[in-house]
Amino acid sequence: MNDISQLTQALLQFRNEREWEQFHNPKDLALAISVEAGELLELFLWKNPEDANKEKVKEELADILAFSFLLAEKYGFDVKEIVLEKIAKNAEKYPIEKAKGTAKKYNEF
Amino acid sequence: MNDISQLTQALLQFRNEREWEQFHNPKDLALAISVEAGELLELFLWKNPEDANKEKVKEELADILAFSFLLAEKYGFDVKEIVLEKIAKNAEKYPIEKAKGTAKKYNEF
Amino acid sequence: MNDISQLTQALLQFRNEREWEQFHNPKDLALAISVEAGELLELFLWKNPEDANKEKVKEELADILAFSFLLAEKYGFDVKEIVLEKIAKNAEKYPIEKAKGTAKKYNEF
Amino acid sequence: MNDISQLTQALLQFRNEREWEQFHNPKDLALAISVEAGELLELFLWKNPEDANKEKVKEELADILAFSFLLAEKYGFDVKEIVLEKIAKNAEKYPIEKAKGTAKKYNEF
Repeated sequence: MNDISQLTQALLQFRNEREWEQFHNPKDLALAISVEAGELLELFLWKNPEDANKEKVKEELADILAFSFLLAEKYGFDVKEIVLEKIAKNAEKYPIEKAKGTAKKYNEF
Repeated sequence: MNDISQLTQALLQFRNEREWEQFHNPKDLALAISVEAGELLELFLWKNPEDANKEKVKEELADILAFSFLLAEKYGFDVKEIVLEKIAKNAEKYPIEKAKGTAKKYNEF
Repeated sequence: MNDISQLTQALLQFRNEREWEQFHNPKDLALAISVEAGELLELFLWKNPEDANKEKVKEELADILAFSFLLAEKYGFDVKEIVLEKIAKNAEKYPIEKAKGTAKKYNEF
Repeated sequence: MNDISQLTQALLQFRNEREWEQFHNPKDLALAISVEAGELLELFLWKNPEDANKEKVKEELADILAFSFLLAEKYGFDVKEIVLEKIAKNAEKYPIEKAKGTAKKYNEF
């Protein structure tokens, strides 16, 4: 079993032991990801990019990943597959010759 | 090489080919995660939990995961390790006998 | 002086007494709004729409409004004007006969 | 009638003409604020603080304010009152002599 499946299994076990599946509908999982993303963001507020507390970044990032894996599982998505698919899609939207060295959005080329 | 390392390598190659490392400081990566989390959330807005467009959820979730893997790489975090550590920490904050069947936060027990 | 100007003046005074203007660039103010929006959202997590703690909603909403007024001030926007402009713009995107009773986005009509 | 009441009336009229009250429960309004806050944030992504598109900032900020006024109305909050209350509360958490010139959180003093 690969790493992501192992993590997902550990997350499901944690959830099931606490009978939390009843709360974990897709909408609230998406909401949880946003809440955790806001907590991550707060670590950088009013600060230079390199000055966030690394230990806290680690924890908030872990929360985002955990809820993301749970939402993927809820829809039956294979994490590896959907990320590789997105990279391929972005490669079309952002061809190297146009995107190189610029932060413009694809619809601004 | 495990799945997450493979994904991270693919993401770094995509980034480097476009010379985007210059934009990918930790603060903007955290900001990118929040932006994508908001786009995921929008798919559920004014809707019942099960009524979001599955194809779009797949794409937004892939974006969140991609930026999360890149931020982990930036700090040298091992994704598997930090998620397992967080599960262990949450197991202490949410002992089964107190947390079972309730959505209360640990500071409300 | 109208209500919004009075609030903005009070917010500026609070900020200036603490010499916080140096931190309040537009990007960090936008970031602050997102952070507070995440804190508001957390009050609804895993809950029915009506079950958030009203006192806490009040505080988080006040934070969002405060940073929004400060960002408006930073750009020299008149809050009343920009909200009325947006209503007018939305009235074009969402004509009553098409939008009535549906939560569809304008690009889905 | 003051400015904020006028704006709230205009927003309610817009909503009611479209029969959207059915969608505007507190949870989805909070979610809408987060979604719009994410769209505002995106305007600053990979950019220097001063380089966001001002016209777009205006629109996203107007959206955040609009949903914030609607959520305040939903709970019967007086916007002016709750912002002034929050300023008073923050003045206690951030006394001038401790907070002057620092971006620290109150729990880090």
